[in-house]
Amino acid sequence: MSKIQALFQSETFASDGEHGSIAREVPKDYFIERDGARYAGTHLIVDLWGAERLDDLAHVEATLRDAVTAAKATLLHILLHHFPPNQGISGVAVLAESHISIHTWPENGYAALDVFMCGGAEPHATIEVLRAAFNPDRLAVEEILRGRAG
Amino acid sequence: MSKIQALFQSETFASDGEHGSIAREVPKDYFIERDGARYAGTHLIVDLWGAERLDDLAHVEATLRDAVTAAKATLLHILLHHFPPNQGISGVAVLAESHISIHTWPENGYAALDVFMCGGAEPHATIEVLRAAFNPDRLAVEEILRGRAG
Repeated sequence: MSKIQALFQSETFASDGEHGSIAREVPKDYFIERDGARYAGTHLIVDLWGAERLDDLAHVEATLRDAVTAAKATLLHILLHHFPPNQGISGVAVLAESHISIHTWPENGYAALDVFMCGGAEPHATIEVLRAAFNPDRLAVEEILRGRAG
Repeated sequence: MSKIQALFQSETFASDGEHGSIAREVPKDYFIERDGARYAGTHLIVDLWGAERLDDLAHVEATLRDAVTAAKATLLHILLHHFPPNQGISGVAVLAESHISIHTWPENGYAALDVFMCGGAEPHATIEVLRAAFNPDRLAVEEILRGRAG
């Protein structure tokens, strides 16, 4: 959420009182406002069917990194695991703006991803990266505005 | 997904042919079948409002660990970050059965969690752990059967 910090840093107002300048912190709202909706972050539930290279650890890692870059997000950690015997992969990219996760079932050509981002990142920009990397027959995206307050 | 491995390990059939026993691996389906539905894993989208202790890193970590235990899941890694200045926390528990993530907005009393588990784990068992730990005014759970094939 450092992106949010960058976007919504507490502003400091200096007022020249008789005893010199006074710095006053104004509490900020870290929620996002867009099109009249107020929410905490955008969560994309992404499913791939008929996808390729879901057992290729180096490819999955490179794709997660490319997705982070495409979203203009900030990578803090990336963790990947390869699970024998089906060669399924679990990966999580922890971001300053939340996370991307992937879990793959290569034997079914299926992968389940989350792309959860707050602040100024662009989660939807990850979709074409995923499509190009895994060449799925079908890709579904559901958008959830997390913490939607109305 | 080691839980899945434990549950669905390739079975080996020995047949006594004229040249001795022959081991034959039968490919297994790592998807789950329950109540006529076939899917890859259960993904709970959990939202807390009016919640407490969302800025307490040690408490959040202990709660994630308790949630993993309650779900009978296997913890592989846990990562937590504390973000000044609002003291929001991001945490991800990477499991053999997928992951639990939490992102908190303490200034709004809001937390967004995912509880994604495949195999024999019990994701719904995490809910009461979260309720007890964060004492929210409101807790919402949406269940998504990821990779649902029918």
